[in-house]
Amino acid sequence: MANLRYTFRSVTLAMDVSVTIMMPANASFKHQLPYEPGMRFQTLYLLHGRGEDDSSWLRRTRIEEYAEENRLMVVCPATCKGMFMNTAYGVRYEDYLTQELPRIVQSFFPGALTREDTFIAGQGLGAGGALRLALKHPELYSYCAALTPGIGAEMDPEVLRNQIETIPMFKNVYNDDPAFLEENDLLAAARKQKESGTVMPPIYLTISDHEMPAIQETIRYQKNALESLGYDVTFEVLPGSGHDHEYCDRGIRKVIEEKLPLKKSYIYPQEKKQ
Amino acid sequence: MANLRYTFRSVTLAMDVSVTIMMPANASFKHQLPYEPGMRFQTLYLLHGRGEDDSSWLRRTRIEEYAEENRLMVVCPATCKGMFMNTAYGVRYEDYLTQELPRIVQSFFPGALTREDTFIAGQGLGAGGALRLALKHPELYSYCAALTPGIGAEMDPEVLRNQIETIPMFKNVYNDDPAFLEENDLLAAARKQKESGTVMPPIYLTISDHEMPAIQETIRYQKNALESLGYDVTFEVLPGSGHDHEYCDRGIRKVIEEKLPLKKSYIYPQEKKQ
Amino acid sequence: MANLRYTFRSVTLAMDVSVTIMMPANASFKHQLPYEPGMRFQTLYLLHGRGEDDSSWLRRTRIEEYAEENRLMVVCPATCKGMFMNTAYGVRYEDYLTQELPRIVQSFFPGALTREDTFIAGQGLGAGGALRLALKHPELYSYCAALTPGIGAEMDPEVLRNQIETIPMFKNVYNDDPAFLEENDLLAAARKQKESGTVMPPIYLTISDHEMPAIQETIRYQKNALESLGYDVTFEVLPGSGHDHEYCDRGIRKVIEEKLPLKKSYIYPQEKKQ
Amino acid sequence: MANLRYTFRSVTLAMDVSVTIMMPANASFKHQLPYEPGMRFQTLYLLHGRGEDDSSWLRRTRIEEYAEENRLMVVCPATCKGMFMNTAYGVRYEDYLTQELPRIVQSFFPGALTREDTFIAGQGLGAGGALRLALKHPELYSYCAALTPGIGAEMDPEVLRNQIETIPMFKNVYNDDPAFLEENDLLAAARKQKESGTVMPPIYLTISDHEMPAIQETIRYQKNALESLGYDVTFEVLPGSGHDHEYCDRGIRKVIEEKLPLKKSYIYPQEKKQ
Repeated sequence: MANLRYTFRSVTLAMDVSVTIMMPANASFKHQLPYEPGMRFQTLYLLHGRGEDDSSWLRRTRIEEYAEENRLMVVCPATCKGMFMNTAYGVRYEDYLTQELPRIVQSFFPGALTREDTFIAGQGLGAGGALRLALKHPELYSYCAALTPGIGAEMDPEVLRNQIETIPMFKNVYNDDPAFLEENDLLAAARKQKESGTVMPPIYLTISDHEMPAIQETIRYQKNALESLGYDVTFEVLPGSGHDHEYCDRGIRKVIEEKLPLKKSYIYPQEKKQ
Repeated sequence: MANLRYTFRSVTLAMDVSVTIMMPANASFKHQLPYEPGMRFQTLYLLHGRGEDDSSWLRRTRIEEYAEENRLMVVCPATCKGMFMNTAYGVRYEDYLTQELPRIVQSFFPGALTREDTFIAGQGLGAGGALRLALKHPELYSYCAALTPGIGAEMDPEVLRNQIETIPMFKNVYNDDPAFLEENDLLAAARKQKESGTVMPPIYLTISDHEMPAIQETIRYQKNALESLGYDVTFEVLPGSGHDHEYCDRGIRKVIEEKLPLKKSYIYPQEKKQ
Repeated sequence: MANLRYTFRSVTLAMDVSVTIMMPANASFKHQLPYEPGMRFQTLYLLHGRGEDDSSWLRRTRIEEYAEENRLMVVCPATCKGMFMNTAYGVRYEDYLTQELPRIVQSFFPGALTREDTFIAGQGLGAGGALRLALKHPELYSYCAALTPGIGAEMDPEVLRNQIETIPMFKNVYNDDPAFLEENDLLAAARKQKESGTVMPPIYLTISDHEMPAIQETIRYQKNALESLGYDVTFEVLPGSGHDHEYCDRGIRKVIEEKLPLKKSYIYPQEKKQ
Repeated sequence: MANLRYTFRSVTLAMDVSVTIMMPANASFKHQLPYEPGMRFQTLYLLHGRGEDDSSWLRRTRIEEYAEENRLMVVCPATCKGMFMNTAYGVRYEDYLTQELPRIVQSFFPGALTREDTFIAGQGLGAGGALRLALKHPELYSYCAALTPGIGAEMDPEVLRNQIETIPMFKNVYNDDPAFLEENDLLAAARKQKESGTVMPPIYLTISDHEMPAIQETIRYQKNALESLGYDVTFEVLPGSGHDHEYCDRGIRKVIEEKLPLKKSYIYPQEKKQ
């Protein structure tokens, strides 16, 4: 098992940030694949829940082991309370996550170079973030897994408007500018991509069997909306009490072991030439 | 030498944050003071510059050594780009820094329990933060050191208004609400404290001999304004090229070795009873 | 949830070491207990397995959550490959763990001050370490939990002698000095303590239902030997495949939730006076 | 500025270890070089002093800044008290440092791929380590800088024998096996390399002007011995009080800014093809 916390200055954000990265080193395995300069790992961008930071997934679940066993690199960024968006108060987290960070992960670390080998997932607020990034930047990810994408991933415009008015964090991140709202309208993005014939990643949605009815409704709305637009959506109810970390541990394990299109091997440089 | 990075959920901020703490352990000294349950350390809250995080001071200067040699605990919080304020977008960094964090530092760590043993300092944007917190919460700190408190610590209301209009980070943190501006008017706070007879900490202001003229002007304005209100202000020009870390290293060393009212010992429990 | 990694110079070891500490902060709870200077936490010293380090428990299990929910502070030291002993090559890990570290945990952190509130546990090699420290220093711990105390906790002298001859790590840590062997003879220590009427902590031993027969035998030997000496021993077989981290996660959860004599509250200063 | 601490399982050591790595990111510069998948950094392996760990250089000097400004990646390993050797007690740090770690640094991070772009340095015990690794593995490094290579880098066999008998750490790391002593005889290694015509790196030796006479003598002995064998040796006395960190800070700055054959640029993939 192997991990690191990389602290650096982001140009996009104009501030120092930390990223937790889990490396699929296999030194503790009986069957060890060789390390080789130029090799790459399939890469999962994994977004934290409300109020969490880049270290949350590593600490609160056993993901390091699941990732290692499946030769998967996991990149956990943090966006304070910025909801993984280009916030109305001027901090461009979406640009950071989809432009600057991938470039760093590919240049300073052996992150995957192709869409085929890159995935995105998240839980709670981070599930909403994963869904938004996948729908707006489908050229980056070939699979999207959203564990309980409730608040922060609303597709019903009326409910969203209500959230912006009542939840302080939303009021700050969003603003009243119609252009801003349009740019972050998930359903509109989902429709536009389909209409323009873009290849979209399969989407995996889960919810716990004890989830609050309002969030259940949100997620079923997402499921139906995406399906009716022709998306490849899988929906599953997992045991657990809502957003708790036991549910997250179970969910991310399922995603890694059963859902992601994994090669279960490193990507060696010569393979690219073939 | 000894340090740690504490990651925890802040109630005030409703999110996970990190604090870097340097402990004045003396295991590497010839003259070792004993460790004893209940002992405390004199404590310096030290604020980072623009875009930096809680690890910046530890990494970019040799402060760990200066602090240890002087038996001083150093607490470095981070506030993303929140300027150490209760931001207009609803994240209450000032409350976090002056209420929640000190309580944690005193309950989970051996932080000083009295104003007499507690100090605040910062550089650049953090110098402005230190000045603001010292002027608004003088009951917490018995000394304030501000290394280049330029942008973010403006006392001339006209200049401040101009900054809010032109610097995006300011536009976001501040807002147009007159109550907000009044609450964060440094000069008004300084005046009010003096008028009500509050005991105010001595203030140490420094600037590098290569600083930009505009920032030099800001700091001389601060110095004159505070002096004319009767504040105990020391002003020094230190060699260095502006905000750079060599200047910071030199400045914080001077603050610790020559300025802070240090006991150069641990505070033992029995001392409090006497 | 809250954790830190403290890096400092150990006087006993004459080198810099790291300790991972999990703090039972409760900021994420609905029912929050107040923080108060002088308060303490019940404290579990938790030893890592073979070849692991101080960060292993935090990363590989979900212990942070179990500890927090039960208001328990967890202290995870590391001893390279020193087997938690005063090694034959002169690095005194046992002294560090039983003298210097507790003093630091009580002086720099709110570690428990009494035997009643202090516990020890470990897995694999660390389970052996926990057993050895509990048997040799029963005045420090009121409960000992050993998850698979196989190699490194041998009570059959013949088997131990064989291990010292065949396992390189043992050959280095131990040596041929009869005094050294006597000092680290677990069974002799267990007998001596009982004969002198020392109050000994209850001991919890577990093993996975897929464990290797040799290790099963070792642990049953321990169980029988300790019981025949009059020790309060609980032995349980848990599901899992040997030393794996899923078994560890399950085991440490059981220890925290069902075995340790927990107050499930902070220890406030006034309580000590009563 | 940018750094990380990578924690992983070493196969060679059969235990979890940490490495601190400073990356020459240039996000805080006006003149930013582009990041590009496949690019590499010139790489300095930097060894810590007696009893220190992988985080020491980062914390105790301002090296992160010097390295970044000069586009140099710095890799700081730790070897507990193993003196960077294949210890007599069976922990093979030298193999780890010269075989496993470089492979990881080149496969998981953008470490230099050629001898020309790879350097080694250290202070105190780590200076001795740097000297030993450079003399025994000159195919790996094109420059060696040793700041005060006193204890642990003895070239006078009589003095070394005395050290092994009187310093406990030496007694443990070394042993009486003549083959072991021969394998770690620095002078013999230096002679053998020259005799076989191996290309050897230039060697930079420094000492502080307040150093203890015995250590001064050791270093002058090294200097003379290496020069008489035809080595390219530069020797300088720097101001400072011995091993202290102000001297180290000054020394490593000089090494980076004036001594290492730096390109002051990233190494881009296309350059290798030309």
